[in-house]
Amino acid sequence: MPVSETAAIEITAYSWVPDFAKGLVRDLRVRWTLEELGLPYRVRLYNRAVSEAEDRIPEQPFGQVPCLVEGDVRMFESGAICLWLAERSDLLLPREAQAHARVTSWVFAALNSIEPFVLSYQLANVFDADKPGATDYAPATGKRLGQRLRQLSDALGTRDWLTERFSVADILMAHVLMPLTKAGFDAMPENLAAYVERAGARPAFQAALAAQLDDFTGAPPARAA
Amino acid sequence: MPVSETAAIEITAYSWVPDFAKGLVRDLRVRWTLEELGLPYRVRLYNRAVSEAEDRIPEQPFGQVPCLVEGDVRMFESGAICLWLAERSDLLLPREAQAHARVTSWVFAALNSIEPFVLSYQLANVFDADKPGATDYAPATGKRLGQRLRQLSDALGTRDWLTERFSVADILMAHVLMPLTKAGFDAMPENLAAYVERAGARPAFQAALAAQLDDFTGAPPARAA
Repeated sequence: MPVSETAAIEITAYSWVPDFAKGLVRDLRVRWTLEELGLPYRVRLYNRAVSEAEDRIPEQPFGQVPCLVEGDVRMFESGAICLWLAERSDLLLPREAQAHARVTSWVFAALNSIEPFVLSYQLANVFDADKPGATDYAPATGKRLGQRLRQLSDALGTRDWLTERFSVADILMAHVLMPLTKAGFDAMPENLAAYVERAGARPAFQAALAAQLDDFTGAPPARAA
Repeated sequence: MPVSETAAIEITAYSWVPDFAKGLVRDLRVRWTLEELGLPYRVRLYNRAVSEAEDRIPEQPFGQVPCLVEGDVRMFESGAICLWLAERSDLLLPREAQAHARVTSWVFAALNSIEPFVLSYQLANVFDADKPGATDYAPATGKRLGQRLRQLSDALGTRDWLTERFSVADILMAHVLMPLTKAGFDAMPENLAAYVERAGARPAFQAALAAQLDDFTGAPPARAA
């Protein structure tokens, strides 16, 4: 079990989030990578429910989790952290130049070609649902997202993973898609739904998810009490 | 001048895009990186105005530019390509572990914490402007983007660049922000506007921009003729 009080690697996570966000907060991407690599880590918790000012997390310009500290190295951005961790072995990132290049291409595709369209969809359909125009505009975001997912579905085809074998790109891509499978997004191609399920069935994902859920020990916002 | 027919590095770019997209297409990020590093490259052009089927670009699952080919290595995603190019010297990416980690954190911040909010804003305000609800919803996207930019502005402070010296993260962040300065986004913090101007004044950026503009030699869509 990689969570250990004496681990050299420290990550930040939340001690409280709303129910819908459980399993979706991005420290899960880092925990999952650490579990796949068998690297122990400890967790510094922040309560998302406290005031904005206190909520500000050192070393993270957007006041969010996750950050990672190991010795003198301080990082933020789950994508940067996962790639940096993956670089230390060939388990999640092949060392051979061509294969390495393909995996990193897919790492960025997950975060810069798919996730922005997932965010645009989530904003109009969920987070901004009470804003003027959001309900009318929401279908356009679903249509654009659906187009991207069909392209991704074509690229995946009948393979199990984005490249020859499971890699850090699959950790990021699967977690980018999880809010959609969780919410039952109706234009999710079948092979992508199966891909997310396959990724989520990995013991390392299950361990990472359990560890994130275990850390939600904080109090909810006072206004909700 | 890095553009050379005999260069080992080949990138893809468009031979035609609408006027508003000139200077914003993402091969510019790769050209800029190559110019900063003094690496010669050749260009394979695709006409964005041709039919969707023909427009499909090999090695790019979303049918977009840029891709990069060098020997056996084939990459897509401008972020992956720029980072991969930057790794080959310490000009744009320090080798020392802590500084390397900071730069890669900012690379991902540009593409995964800022650009998705730029996209959401551009979709509602420009690309989807004719969609139901878009006009009413657009201000909400500007407000969210403005919040992110204030956090980025705080993080930049009075420094010239995101880290101690100019890096590949500044190439990506500046180009992510350029559509906003070009369109006169009204909630652009002053230090970020100055940052984009500073980046855009670099000779390598100017050379890359000139090269992209030079390559727009293709015919516009038939329907517009």
